[in-house]
Amino acid sequence: MINTKYTLTQVIENTEPADPKWQAAARDHIEKLAIPPRSLGQLLVVAEQLAGIQRTIRPNVDKKLVITMAGDHGVVAEGVSAFPQEVTPQMVENFVKGGAGINILAKTSGADVIVVDMGVAVDMPRLVESGAIIDCKIAYGTKNFAKEPAMTREQAIAAIEAGINVASKVIEEQSVNLLATGDMGIGNTTPSAAILAVMAEYPVSSVTGRGTGIDNATLLNKIKVIRDAINLHQPDKNDPLDVLAKIGGFEIAGIAGVILGAAYHQVPVLVDGFISTAGALIAKGLCPQCLDYMIPSHQSEEPGHQLMWQALGLRPLLNLNFKLGEGTGAAVAMHLVESSARVMCDVLTFEDAGVTNGHEGL
Amino acid sequence: MINTKYTLTQVIENTEPADPKWQAAARDHIEKLAIPPRSLGQLLVVAEQLAGIQRTIRPNVDKKLVITMAGDHGVVAEGVSAFPQEVTPQMVENFVKGGAGINILAKTSGADVIVVDMGVAVDMPRLVESGAIIDCKIAYGTKNFAKEPAMTREQAIAAIEAGINVASKVIEEQSVNLLATGDMGIGNTTPSAAILAVMAEYPVSSVTGRGTGIDNATLLNKIKVIRDAINLHQPDKNDPLDVLAKIGGFEIAGIAGVILGAAYHQVPVLVDGFISTAGALIAKGLCPQCLDYMIPSHQSEEPGHQLMWQALGLRPLLNLNFKLGEGTGAAVAMHLVESSARVMCDVLTFEDAGVTNGHEGL
Repeated sequence: MINTKYTLTQVIENTEPADPKWQAAARDHIEKLAIPPRSLGQLLVVAEQLAGIQRTIRPNVDKKLVITMAGDHGVVAEGVSAFPQEVTPQMVENFVKGGAGINILAKTSGADVIVVDMGVAVDMPRLVESGAIIDCKIAYGTKNFAKEPAMTREQAIAAIEAGINVASKVIEEQSVNLLATGDMGIGNTTPSAAILAVMAEYPVSSVTGRGTGIDNATLLNKIKVIRDAINLHQPDKNDPLDVLAKIGGFEIAGIAGVILGAAYHQVPVLVDGFISTAGALIAKGLCPQCLDYMIPSHQSEEPGHQLMWQALGLRPLLNLNFKLGEGTGAAVAMHLVESSARVMCDVLTFEDAGVTNGHEGL
Repeated sequence: MINTKYTLTQVIENTEPADPKWQAAARDHIEKLAIPPRSLGQLLVVAEQLAGIQRTIRPNVDKKLVITMAGDHGVVAEGVSAFPQEVTPQMVENFVKGGAGINILAKTSGADVIVVDMGVAVDMPRLVESGAIIDCKIAYGTKNFAKEPAMTREQAIAAIEAGINVASKVIEEQSVNLLATGDMGIGNTTPSAAILAVMAEYPVSSVTGRGTGIDNATLLNKIKVIRDAINLHQPDKNDPLDVLAKIGGFEIAGIAGVILGAAYHQVPVLVDGFISTAGALIAKGLCPQCLDYMIPSHQSEEPGHQLMWQALGLRPLLNLNFKLGEGTGAAVAMHLVESSARVMCDVLTFEDAGVTNGHEGL
């Protein structure tokens, strides 16, 4: 178990919004660069965000880390997934081997990956003892929320605090300056869709998708399971801990914690796919100012994902039709964030480059 | 001047399409990877394309190069641009200094940049003699195509052949295995829009945009200049050399040549923005099989750009609202292509990773 240096209450009370003065300073600097006005589009939007987060016009994201959080879900007993639950620890093993999608895409972007057990249904003693994974196991999977709450309110808080403290530790001890969230958990599009339906008040049928590739009959069942669970538990959308406890997941709570921890420490965090963005909805519900620190990485194939971005008011950088999770979309987007930072640091101004500014005085 | 080792005729006659056998082999390999089916979306589309181009299921793009081609345009006399013509050589100087957008974005993607003078309106003897730029100057800018053809047919062929031979040289001598096109030339959205209007038969008003940021009056004038020029010269859409000679540009011809040279040598080439894609329309018109070697990098803000991609039947990887050119969008997209190649080489199969394949037998 990771040490609880920061509590949830402490983080919620002490997280500051990004600094608009530095955003404005970045905008001024961008106007002087020897490029046509705003001609690097979204990269400049990210550049201004980084400036507001890091309080500098020369942002630096040279120390990049993906935190991939794993957990199991009691609701898989209802037959909502294409893969069996044993795949969760198998994929954790694959992450440790370095052979999964997230390993390769993070490496290509110059990022490290750490894997956290938030609640896998089996023990993985060899991986824990060797330090290959971080043990924050809250329980052996959530309860089946078709029948009872997924977790207790205390477990929800503990899982979020684990995420806060994992993020805090790598920021404080390894000087990580760009985080990305990732997830692994068979069945976890089901709680994610449920969270979206409750937090943003969408009909369940419009937010529920095929996850890793379920057929029509399984999809209809998945919709029914989610709808019935929401009717059964009546989660309170104004109380994100209630939502998380009743229909959430441990890795989703952990991801919410990573986002909160990043915001508290004024570190930018790339939010990955459908599951990570469910975590982002929870994080924003708990602490609205943490939104300033989220960079929306990509639009996944899961149909509810764009509704999540809309609910957050964010426009994702990439749309590559991913439907993998693990942090893969966020890992790819790290390259764009690094490109933004480098533009701010290294592109010359009209003056320094000796280039006539056609827009001067316009 | 670069040596003409390969003629245009030779390249057109000897360029082979990509190999569907290797594309199929790549598809088979992808099905075995320990990820849900097709869950890395567009990266897997690129991976299959790379396999078909390089004739391997383990593609390699470790030697990346952006070729940025510069040229001036007589048509700027008609007042179609926000920047004065002197900016073309100033930006070439900035590329050599390493302080422009393309330098920074290429470096972030691990790519080199070379700059080619295809037809800048002034001499740059210091840069040529020091080897900082490659001298393929066809003339001191094109003629003003509002009044006379932009160039002769012989100049169009010479400019394309220069592009072919620049690409061939870096492929043969430096083992470059991923190329990107780029452009610099004040006024060059005007010939690019004119080429699109003719080659894909669109109304001039629908393909003409604000380039680096012209106002409404200048935009209306730009549309009129292009429309009148097409009426005056009546370029033959079935004869791309006629189109290029009458309403084209030297750097656009050079870019077409780079694409043709890449295809001839079976090397993938990322096509950048509006000007580069005008070059791609010319290249495809001359040699349809070269389309197999083009990777569409991004959708720019120039409204005609998406019509160009539609005309080519390609879907761009990125949409970051760039409107810069230089090769910047292609440089960023190099990271995605590298990610695709690494996925093919390094992601483990279900079998090697020891992960249960939920989709086996489906």
